[in-house]
Amino acid sequence: MSVLIVGSTALDSIKTPHAENPRLLGGSASHAAVAASFFSPVKLVGVVGKDFPKKYVTLYKRHKIDLEGLQIEEGKTFHWSGEYEVNMNHRRTLLTELGVFENFTPHLPESYKKSPFVLLANIAPALQHHVLDQMQKPKFVVADTMDLWLNIAKDELVKLIRRVDCFVLNDGEAHQLTESDNVFAALKKIHKLGPRYVIIKKGSHGSILSGPGGFFICPAYPLPNVCDPTGAGDSFAGGLMGYLATARGSIDGNIRRGMIYGAVTASFCCEGFGLKKTTTIKRVDIEKRVKELEKATRF
Amino acid sequence: MSVLIVGSTALDSIKTPHAENPRLLGGSASHAAVAASFFSPVKLVGVVGKDFPKKYVTLYKRHKIDLEGLQIEEGKTFHWSGEYEVNMNHRRTLLTELGVFENFTPHLPESYKKSPFVLLANIAPALQHHVLDQMQKPKFVVADTMDLWLNIAKDELVKLIRRVDCFVLNDGEAHQLTESDNVFAALKKIHKLGPRYVIIKKGSHGSILSGPGGFFICPAYPLPNVCDPTGAGDSFAGGLMGYLATARGSIDGNIRRGMIYGAVTASFCCEGFGLKKTTTIKRVDIEKRVKELEKATRF
Repeated sequence: MSVLIVGSTALDSIKTPHAENPRLLGGSASHAAVAASFFSPVKLVGVVGKDFPKKYVTLYKRHKIDLEGLQIEEGKTFHWSGEYEVNMNHRRTLLTELGVFENFTPHLPESYKKSPFVLLANIAPALQHHVLDQMQKPKFVVADTMDLWLNIAKDELVKLIRRVDCFVLNDGEAHQLTESDNVFAALKKIHKLGPRYVIIKKGSHGSILSGPGGFFICPAYPLPNVCDPTGAGDSFAGGLMGYLATARGSIDGNIRRGMIYGAVTASFCCEGFGLKKTTTIKRVDIEKRVKELEKATRF
Repeated sequence: MSVLIVGSTALDSIKTPHAENPRLLGGSASHAAVAASFFSPVKLVGVVGKDFPKKYVTLYKRHKIDLEGLQIEEGKTFHWSGEYEVNMNHRRTLLTELGVFENFTPHLPESYKKSPFVLLANIAPALQHHVLDQMQKPKFVVADTMDLWLNIAKDELVKLIRRVDCFVLNDGEAHQLTESDNVFAALKKIHKLGPRYVIIKKGSHGSILSGPGGFFICPAYPLPNVCDPTGAGDSFAGGLMGYLATARGSIDGNIRRGMIYGAVTASFCCEGFGLKKTTTIKRVDIEKRVKELEKATRF
């Protein structure tokens, strides 16, 4: 089955202590879509400007991503620039040029509206709502977010959380949302907002699922070298959704393994700037790391 | 088989945002010994002053801890006082009164010298060396440490690391020792110092083993409420060693499960001030949480 993914499609200029990479393909939807494409057909919803490099359209197409929902508008593509510190756990935004993203309203093509799996990747909650409003009884909806929306659109975000099957956020955001510093206490609080599944991402410490089957402690894939963690959380959500869309059986039965696939897809994302590493791998490379994670967690 | 444990035996005064608890039984050896006692006979090596409360001797004895190696000297018992912040991840030392600990030289009773399992819990590296010098071919030696020794006795510590089978430290200490911020890179560097196994503890994020069987990603037990994390790392090492001392088969084959037992023992430690919670549980409570961790990591 196919996955519909809505989110940002951007150009990222990323600086680390070791290198500088201007105008890479980025944005939550780009990372999630490429990650999901290893498992299932993907329908992308996003917006870019007329300046959007053709090579990135080619990249999407190479991953068989359906671009009917990619709006190309007069103006400039959303451009984000950020800088990482040595330990990669802290980054600061240097520049945000919204461009065509400022007036983006996601219109779903007819062929998208019956997609069974919907990933509302990080984007304004109002736009996430707008996409959901256009969908016809999706089977499974996941939403991600970022701290910005907790700061400026918390009410809309909380309403969105009620409407989704699975809500994904990182530990800092969970703390901000619940005022609880403890991940397990935060999970309980977010559950009360509505979703059947809640996942808190903890970067290199993995992620925790709370669902009907109890907690699942999902490891991160061991990486001795992290090149650029931008998009890792989006890759995680994309890999998870791509896996779920094609796995046989129930979501309850598959979601844990889906998170493992998400963690592995995210690990490749961290090994190159932007999507550079992710776009060089094949499904077999993912399967190899999944087996390694099985071995690294067995006791 | 029995476990010999050397380390500090102290009185801890612990302050948190919620409570204040003066002169609890504490110290690395106390926490490790009680944790190990759920699995195997324990021989304690430490020093206390004449002021050491009788109720704590009774507590050790209730856990069948052999006290032949506990020296009782003229003077005061080591007293440490610390304060935790709201999130329990940061603490500051308010007071350190070394007392009889200042001139402590661990003398091993004859009956201790052939102990097959030796845990050199956190204490000055010189004293850890001194204990090892007195041992007769132990089967398995684990050493723990703290940041203080990296600051003031790094050379002695590095020499000790060479002499042990398994070295345990937390992520901050691993960073300080290796100058690497990445846990997996740090594990590789510490391996080069000699030990067959290296374990990096990450508090509520669990721990990572690097050994001949590759990495093992060991989860922490999910705790929505942490009361006092003092001694959790010591409980982890104690539980691990206690389990290993009685498990059938090879260390290679048992060490992962041993870490799970250590993680569970540490979880009880975090649920009460000092040893208050740990001393109320039974082996069956530990087994229950081990089963829960099995369930929470399966995929």
